[in-house]
Amino acid sequence: MRLTELGEKEVIRRMSRFLSIGDDAAYLKIDDRYLVLSTDMIYSETHLLPGISYEQIGKLIVTVNLSDIAAMGAEPFAFLLAYGGPDDDFKNLEALIKAADRQCKKYGTRYVGGDTKYAQKMTLTGTAAGFTKRPVLRSGAKVGDIIAVTGTLGGAALVVDCLLRGWECPKWLIRKALEPEPRAKEGILLGKYASAMTDISDSLSTSLHDIAIQSHVGVRLLIDEIPLDEGAVKMAADLGLDLMDYALYGGGDYELLFTASGDNLELVEDGILVTRIGEVTKEKGVTAVDGQHVFPLEKKGYEHFRG
Amino acid sequence: MRLTELGEKEVIRRMSRFLSIGDDAAYLKIDDRYLVLSTDMIYSETHLLPGISYEQIGKLIVTVNLSDIAAMGAEPFAFLLAYGGPDDDFKNLEALIKAADRQCKKYGTRYVGGDTKYAQKMTLTGTAAGFTKRPVLRSGAKVGDIIAVTGTLGGAALVVDCLLRGWECPKWLIRKALEPEPRAKEGILLGKYASAMTDISDSLSTSLHDIAIQSHVGVRLLIDEIPLDEGAVKMAADLGLDLMDYALYGGGDYELLFTASGDNLELVEDGILVTRIGEVTKEKGVTAVDGQHVFPLEKKGYEHFRG
Repeated sequence: MRLTELGEKEVIRRMSRFLSIGDDAAYLKIDDRYLVLSTDMIYSETHLLPGISYEQIGKLIVTVNLSDIAAMGAEPFAFLLAYGGPDDDFKNLEALIKAADRQCKKYGTRYVGGDTKYAQKMTLTGTAAGFTKRPVLRSGAKVGDIIAVTGTLGGAALVVDCLLRGWECPKWLIRKALEPEPRAKEGILLGKYASAMTDISDSLSTSLHDIAIQSHVGVRLLIDEIPLDEGAVKMAADLGLDLMDYALYGGGDYELLFTASGDNLELVEDGILVTRIGEVTKEKGVTAVDGQHVFPLEKKGYEHFRG
Repeated sequence: MRLTELGEKEVIRRMSRFLSIGDDAAYLKIDDRYLVLSTDMIYSETHLLPGISYEQIGKLIVTVNLSDIAAMGAEPFAFLLAYGGPDDDFKNLEALIKAADRQCKKYGTRYVGGDTKYAQKMTLTGTAAGFTKRPVLRSGAKVGDIIAVTGTLGGAALVVDCLLRGWECPKWLIRKALEPEPRAKEGILLGKYASAMTDISDSLSTSLHDIAIQSHVGVRLLIDEIPLDEGAVKMAADLGLDLMDYALYGGGDYELLFTASGDNLELVEDGILVTRIGEVTKEKGVTAVDGQHVFPLEKKGYEHFRG
C-alpha cells in the first residue's frame, strides 16, 4: 500500500502498532517528573508560505516544537535545530538562527545546538525538550468533561488560502499565519488541570476526533461557541468565504484544545483566557450542534501524503 | 559570504559565536546529572550510498545519533525520528522504522516517537537523549594526556570511495560502511575517565584538530600506531590505494577519539580495547610522526557546503 493511499494519519496509526506514539510529544519518567521530547520537521516546498522571511522561518520552527511541548502540559527548557539547505548567503542562515534563538529565549528555552547539512531544498527539524510532573495525553478525556480551546481559530488557515490564491491579505492577519506563537504559559497551567490535550496543528475537527478516539469517548461540539477573530470573520465574508470552514477544517493556529472537569476548568479560567466549545459524551463520534442542526463532524484537515 | 565559500565547519564556527555549540551533543544540568541531547540529519542525496537498504538506513540514523551520545560519555535512553520522504510503499517505511527500533533496543534505548512528512527526497533527522554524571567535551585535553581511539579506522571511507567509483567490494567490508555500530558501551566507560572526546564522523585529522583547538593544546600523532583493519589494508593495496589516507582523512567509522591521563587510560584499558596513537603537547597544532618524518597534519575530511 502506497503512502499516498494511506495518508499521514493512517501511516502514523500503523506505525503506532509497533511504536508507542500518538501524542504531541514523547514522555519519559525521570525521577519524580517526566521529560517530554518533541521533534517536528518543516519542509520548504510544502510547509513554507510564499513571502515568508528567514526570520519568520526561524521563529516558526521553534513555535511548532514548543507548541507540542505545551500540548503535553510541559514547560520547555531546551531546543535543537537540524538545518538542511542549499547554498545560500551566510547572513540568511544567521538571521534564521538568531530569530530561532530569540523565540527560544522568549519562552525561557535554551537553544543548545543542532546540525547543519547541505540539502537541495530547505528542511528544518526542530527538537524541543520540556519537563512536567504530569503529561497530559490525548487519551485522558472523561465523560462529562468540558471541551475548551485557547485563542481564536481559523485565521491562519484563511491567510494560507488567500496567499496561495494570490489574493491580498491585511498585514496583521498575515503575521498571525506566518508568526504564530506557542501557548507555552497556557500549556504549563493546563498541565495541572486538563484531562486531555493536543495542539490544533492540522484542524479542530481532526484534533477533536483524535481526542475522542484515543479517549474512547464522544464529543459534542457547539459550533456557535467556537471563538473566531472578528477581523478575520469580516475579511472572509468580504471574499465570499465562511471563516467557520477554516476554523473547523484548517490548521496553523497552534492553539490548545483540551478537556477538563467543570471544577478544574474554573481553576483554569482563573488564570488564562479560554473558550468552552463543547462537552465529552458517552456516545462515540464527534457531533456538531449548529443552531437547530445536529450532524456528525467530518474528520478533515491538512494531511501529508494526501493527493 | 556564501555557505559554499565558508564550508560547514566555518558555518558552525560562526554560529557558535551566538550559540554555545562545538561538541558532539548539547548537555544540560538536570539535578545531579547531565541530560545530553544530539540531533543529526541524513539527506539521501548526499549521505546515502548506492545500494543501501531501508533496514540499513533505519539502523544508520540511530547509530549516528547514539555515536554522538557516546562521544559525550553518556548512556543513551531515548530516540526520536523525523522522517521526510516521497511517496513510497508503506512496507519500505515500516522496514526502516523497525530496523531503527531494533538498533535502539540493542543499545538499551527507547524509540519514543517522531514525525512523518512528505518531502521530495528522503531526509531523516534523528534525535537522541542520554544521561551522564560527567559530559566529556572536546575542550578538556591536558598537556601530557595520551590520545587513543576505539576500533580500526579507514575501512568505511575506503568502501564509500570504491562504491562511488563503481568498484567491487567484499561484502563484509560493505557492511562495515553501511552498518556501523555506535561505541555505546565504550562511551559510557570513557565518560568516567576521558579528559576530551569526540566521535570520528568526518575524519581523524579533523577530529584531532577539533580537540587541539578547543582544548588550546597541540597533538602529536604517531602514524604507525593508527589501528587499521588488515583485510582493508590488503584490499586497498590490491587497488593501488593506501588505507592510511582513508584512516587520516576519511570518515564513517564512528569510532571514538579521546584523551586521558596515563593513569586513567590504564583503567580504560582494563575494560575495553583501545589503541594509543599519540599524546597531547604544549606546542599548538597537529603534528604527525611517520617513521623519521615529522610534518604538520592537514585538517581534511568530509564537509558539507564544500564544492
